[in-house]
Parts: sequence; C-alpha cells; structure tokens
Amino acid sequence: MRQYRIFNQEDAVAYAREAAQLGPELVLQGAEIGDGNLNQVFKVCQPGQVTGWIVKQALPYIRCIGDSWPLTRDRARIEAEILLQHGQCCPEFTVAVLHHDASLSAMLLEDLSELQVWRQALLNGEHFADAPVQLGEYLAQVHVHSSDFRLDYQAQQAARIQFANPELMSISEAVYFVDPFCDHERNNVAAGIRNDAELLWADQALKVRVAKLKHDFRCKGQALLHGDLHTGSVMVGAGKLKVIDAEFGGYGPMGFDVGVLIANLLLNLCSQNSPPPQRQRIKDVQAFWQSFHAQFFLLASQTADPALAEPDYITVFLRQVWQDALGYAGCEMIRRTLGVAHVADIDNIADPEQKIASQRHALALGRALIMHAEQLDDAELEKIALG
Amino acid sequence: MRQYRIFNQEDAVAYAREAAQLGPELVLQGAEIGDGNLNQVFKVCQPGQVTGWIVKQALPYIRCIGDSWPLTRDRARIEAEILLQHGQCCPEFTVAVLHHDASLSAMLLEDLSELQVWRQALLNGEHFADAPVQLGEYLAQVHVHSSDFRLDYQAQQAARIQFANPELMSISEAVYFVDPFCDHERNNVAAGIRNDAELLWADQALKVRVAKLKHDFRCKGQALLHGDLHTGSVMVGAGKLKVIDAEFGGYGPMGFDVGVLIANLLLNLCSQNSPPPQRQRIKDVQAFWQSFHAQFFLLASQTADPALAEPDYITVFLRQVWQDALGYAGCEMIRRTLGVAHVADIDNIADPEQKIASQRHALALGRALIMHAEQLDDAELEKIALG
Repeated sequence: MRQYRIFNQEDAVAYAREAAQLGPELVLQGAEIGDGNLNQVFKVCQPGQVTGWIVKQALPYIRCIGDSWPLTRDRARIEAEILLQHGQCCPEFTVAVLHHDASLSAMLLEDLSELQVWRQALLNGEHFADAPVQLGEYLAQVHVHSSDFRLDYQAQQAARIQFANPELMSISEAVYFVDPFCDHERNNVAAGIRNDAELLWADQALKVRVAKLKHDFRCKGQALLHGDLHTGSVMVGAGKLKVIDAEFGGYGPMGFDVGVLIANLLLNLCSQNSPPPQRQRIKDVQAFWQSFHAQFFLLASQTADPALAEPDYITVFLRQVWQDALGYAGCEMIRRTLGVAHVADIDNIADPEQKIASQRHALALGRALIMHAEQLDDAELEKIALG
Repeated sequence: MRQYRIFNQEDAVAYAREAAQLGPELVLQGAEIGDGNLNQVFKVCQPGQVTGWIVKQALPYIRCIGDSWPLTRDRARIEAEILLQHGQCCPEFTVAVLHHDASLSAMLLEDLSELQVWRQALLNGEHFADAPVQLGEYLAQVHVHSSDFRLDYQAQQAARIQFANPELMSISEAVYFVDPFCDHERNNVAAGIRNDAELLWADQALKVRVAKLKHDFRCKGQALLHGDLHTGSVMVGAGKLKVIDAEFGGYGPMGFDVGVLIANLLLNLCSQNSPPPQRQRIKDVQAFWQSFHAQFFLLASQTADPALAEPDYITVFLRQVWQDALGYAGCEMIRRTLGVAHVADIDNIADPEQKIASQRHALALGRALIMHAEQLDDAELEKIALG
C-alpha cells in the first residue's frame, strides 16, 4: 500500500507512467486542468501530443472550500468502482478507468480531449442530436443491470454494500432537499428573486412533496446511480459520448438520475430567450426519455425473475420512474437556482433582467414539476415548460 | 473466539452458566424445547423452577429440512443485534438478549415461560385485549427509531450494513412473492382449493401488483424490520407482551411488518365460523393500526430533520405505509394458504369443508387486499373481511 500524498505535477506524471506501464524513457509532461469543486485533475501527455491520460486524485477535503471541510478520500475508490461497474454494463458511453489506487485516492482515466463538455456545447449553441438518445441508452443499461431485474437479493445487497457512499450522498441529500427549501446560509439567492424564494420556502404543499422525494432518495435503493448526471458530467463530440464524474454515485431511485439530466436540459431552456432553442431542449428531453424507456423495457423484459417479467409490470414501473424523475428534476432546478451550486447556463447571462427572468422561470417550472408529477406525460411537459 | 459446535443439553447448560455468570455450584438442567423450523432452543433452569433462561442456537442448515439446505449461522449474530437494537428502542415489548456469542451462533434470552404464544391463545379462544395496542406501540418505536425520522444519512447507511441479512431476506422474498403466485414445487396446495390456486396463478393484474410489492420489499429500505411479525412471534400474558424471533429482520418497507401482523389476525378471522370472534379480529386489526398510527405520529413529529417535520408529510407517509401494509397482508394470507408454511389457525380445522371454506376465504381476502389497497381504510376493511 502506497502512502497517500497530495500529487503535484511530477507525482501525477509518475503515477501515470507506472499505471499505464509507459517505461522510463518516454518523455511526459503534466498539467493540472481541474475546474471541479472536489478533486485534482491532471492531464499527462507527451510534449506536442493532444491526447494522453487523465489522472484524477481526491483530496482529503473539498477543494473549493479547503481543509476546513474534510471529506473522505475513499470517494476515489468508490468512484473508480462505480465507473468500472458502469463501464462493464455500458462501455460505449462510460469513461474508461485504466487503473486506480485506493491508497493514493487516484485513478488513471482515458483522455477525452477530443470531446467537449455537453453543457459548454449547449452554451455555445451547438446541438448534438445523438446525445439525448445515447444518454437514454447509457442510463437504461446501468440502471437495469444493477436492479432487481438482473440481480438476485444477495447479489444486489452485496452491491449496495460495495458501493455504499454515505458521505457524498448525504451532501446530495442536504443540497437537493434541505438547503434550497429554507433560508439556509449555504444558499446563494440573487436579490432579484428573494421574494420568489421566500414564497417557495413558505409553500407547505411543496415541502410535503419534497420530504417524500428526500425520503425516497435515501430509502429507495433501486439501482446503482451515477448520482450527478448533469450536462457537465457528459462529454460529447463527433458522434461519441462519454459519461464522467460518478463520485456522487450509489444505490438510489432511478428517477433521480433521469430527473437530474432532464432538469439540466430544462435549465438550459430557461436560459434561452428565443423559442427555437427552447423547443429543441424539450425535444432533447423527450428523445432522452423515449430512448431510456425503450431500452429499459427491452433489457428489463429479459429478466430471469419470473415475478418481474410481466410486461404490464415494466410499464407500471417505468411510469413511476417518470413521476419520480419529474419530482427530482424540480428539486434540481430549484437547488441550481437558490442553492450553493448554480449552472453556467443561467449564471452567465449578462443582462440582469433576463437573468432574473430565467431564474424565476426555473423556480416556477421546478415547482410545477414537483407538484404535478403524476399528471404530466412528456408531451404535456412541453406545455408547462414553454408556458 | 470459540469453536462452533452443535449444542447438546450439556453444552446449552454450560453456555448459559457462563453467559449468565451463575457459578459452578448452581445445579442446572437443560431441555430442548424448540418447535421452530430453523434453530435449536433449550430451556435451562434449576430443578423445580418454572423460569430460567433460554439458549437459542443457529444450526448451519435449516433444522426442519436438514443439512441439504445450508443456511448461514451468521443469522444468530444478526438476530441478536436486531433484538438488542429493538430492545433499546422498546425494552418493554422486546425479549431481552442477556448474552450472545457470534462464534457459537448462540444467544441467552430471558425465559418467558409465564407467557404464552399469542397464536396459541387465539386458537384457544382467549382474548388479550391489550396485545394489539401494545404491538402498535412496539412497532412504531422500532420503525421510527431506525428510520430517517431519527437517523441521518450516514447513521442509517451504517445500520443498513450492520443489519444486512441477505440470506434470510431472500428466503422471505421467495416464499412471499414468488412461490405462492406460481405452481412451485415448494407449495402446499390442498386438493380442494387447487382450482382457486390456478385461477390466482393466471391473474395477471394481481401479479403486476405483487411484482411491485416484491420490488419494494427489496428496495424500500425504510426501517429495521422485525421481518416475521406473525402471531407466533408474540408472547402474551398477564398484561405483558414480548416480541421474539427476529432472524428474518433487516431493512425493508415498514408496511411489511404491519401487513404480516394484520394478515395473521385476518387468517384467524378466516378460521372462525361465527361472527363474534370474526368481529373481534377486525377490532384487533383496527386497534393495532390506530395504536401504531398514533404512536408513530407522535414519535415522527419529534424528528430533528426540518425537511421531514411537516405534520402533513407524516400523515401522507402513514397513508402509504397503510397501503403497503394491505398489499403485504394480502401476500401473507395467500402464502400461508398456498405456500410451504401454513398457519395452525386454519390447518387445525378438523372439518374438511370448513377448512376449505376458510382457505378460500383467506385467498379471496388476500387478493382483495392486494388489488384494492389504495381504496381501503381500516373501517372499509371490515366490510370486505366479513364479506
């Protein structure tokens, strides 16, 4: 077992050299490229080369806050194991983990420099038509393969223990279901929507529904979630798609992953001020859900469990996943507007009035998704999203 | 660590002597008194004394089948830890674990010889008016204290791992949700109700609902369940009540424990051929649920979690527990009629026609509970139960 140390560039290069078995003669350079909140990320490559390797290392605290907020380094081991597990189910759309070392809290990942972050592409007005369909396939694969449609009781219980991730999932619980629904010091509420926030904090009916979503997030252990499937966790380009950053993963309700992705497409919708891109985001949501639904139905139908094999059951089951997803989408839209972590789609809007209007749209749409989850199909979603 | 051996009477006496620190001079005798399917149970006492100690030991296989069906001995450690945990929440109504030894798969329990098994009391026509109310209090205590109303994310996740009981809960999964809903070789279907069973096995709408109950049993980890709360796991007498036999416990849906108890009262109802005891069983069910509901509401209201503290949420939550309970009650009634393990209430009926009528009543009522769980309150339950 190696002694943990916080990597500098040379450490990252040395780790990559050994982990990728590159030999001492190869000239390599490293650079820290991380822009995330939690970890260090280095790109290691030969001088002059575009593509090399990525070294990701967990720090014993939250990077953007510092050592005043300690956080288990074991998240690196958990993330690597989740990515490997998801990669077994869906290698096409999961970033490849080439090596990982639990004692160093480090992993070597394939370098995806030829791709771009989907959120950035959306910000640039670029449209990747295949991405929603590919993500639907990805999510159906990783969800079904870790669910009771595939695993017997004992195998699923073992997976729940292997991938237990209480420290990071308790952060999700706080930032999704607690902070944004009260006047919490961690929140980041723009002055222009303070009144809207206060109305929301006083909305008892909404809070009853959020309490159920919070309960289910913790107690409804259906599948091994990605846990943070926003458009910044998806790399796209040239027909390819790769999902990255699974450190918030663990067993939870399938609707959570589905809903977080839908919400991030709808947050982009709220940031747009013209109908064509807004309509395109709705089409993206519909394509994503229809792809997920079709692929899930196909995979779940192949279950070896006779009690779950009824086709009508899979339909009923997926209807509940959709309803859960709308609730979680609503929470994500609200927490990205009032909570500690916003999205660039809206935060980057230069015009102050348009930014406030977008935030207000996000809050209203988020609330509507939570309150009307049982009544909305993906066509009706279009009506309330476009207003 | 002790070397495991299958206890004979002398071993049980020696274990009790040491575990209870009784000293070598005390004369003790032991006798095997177990009538269960899984374990050895010895009573150890001084000659001429009525009350002594109980030694319960797990065998490495299922006792009533033999070593052809191996089963983890770790169930003894899990059961002891569950009973201790439940005893912390509700010492009044939980059998006391005085000592346990994981390597011997043995535990020393308080001797409840002055009490009788509640099922036997019901068979004898004895009425213990306090028992349903006491059980409602017991179950509310053990459920709330292991739920998110009391535990934060990390504490609850740790409890899920500590009490993980996949081998025994997978047996429950099979005997509740798979076997009784198909023509399984483990089933025990009386010739007189074969036609009823075949109609039930062809009932697609029923099977879709049972699939959801099966999924929730595995994936809805709300509280540390007793896991086998039938009237044979409850000792009553002289105003006292003690719950025993928690080896099927683990995290699962609260409605499962509630429903199993309700089902066993309704199975007794189905075994009766006169209205007064039938009405009394309905009153028992209502008293149990009302006690559970009131105590649960009180305890849950004291949550430190601001997101769960809305009184309306607790009401909504308990409505769902009730609906889940009716579904699980239906499964218990059906599996105790068609499955491997029946109940004495009906199996002991001497008259063949009355026995068939009781089994048919149990099947019909079980099916109705599963199909109409959303529409039945505890008053309407009376109508469909009495027909």
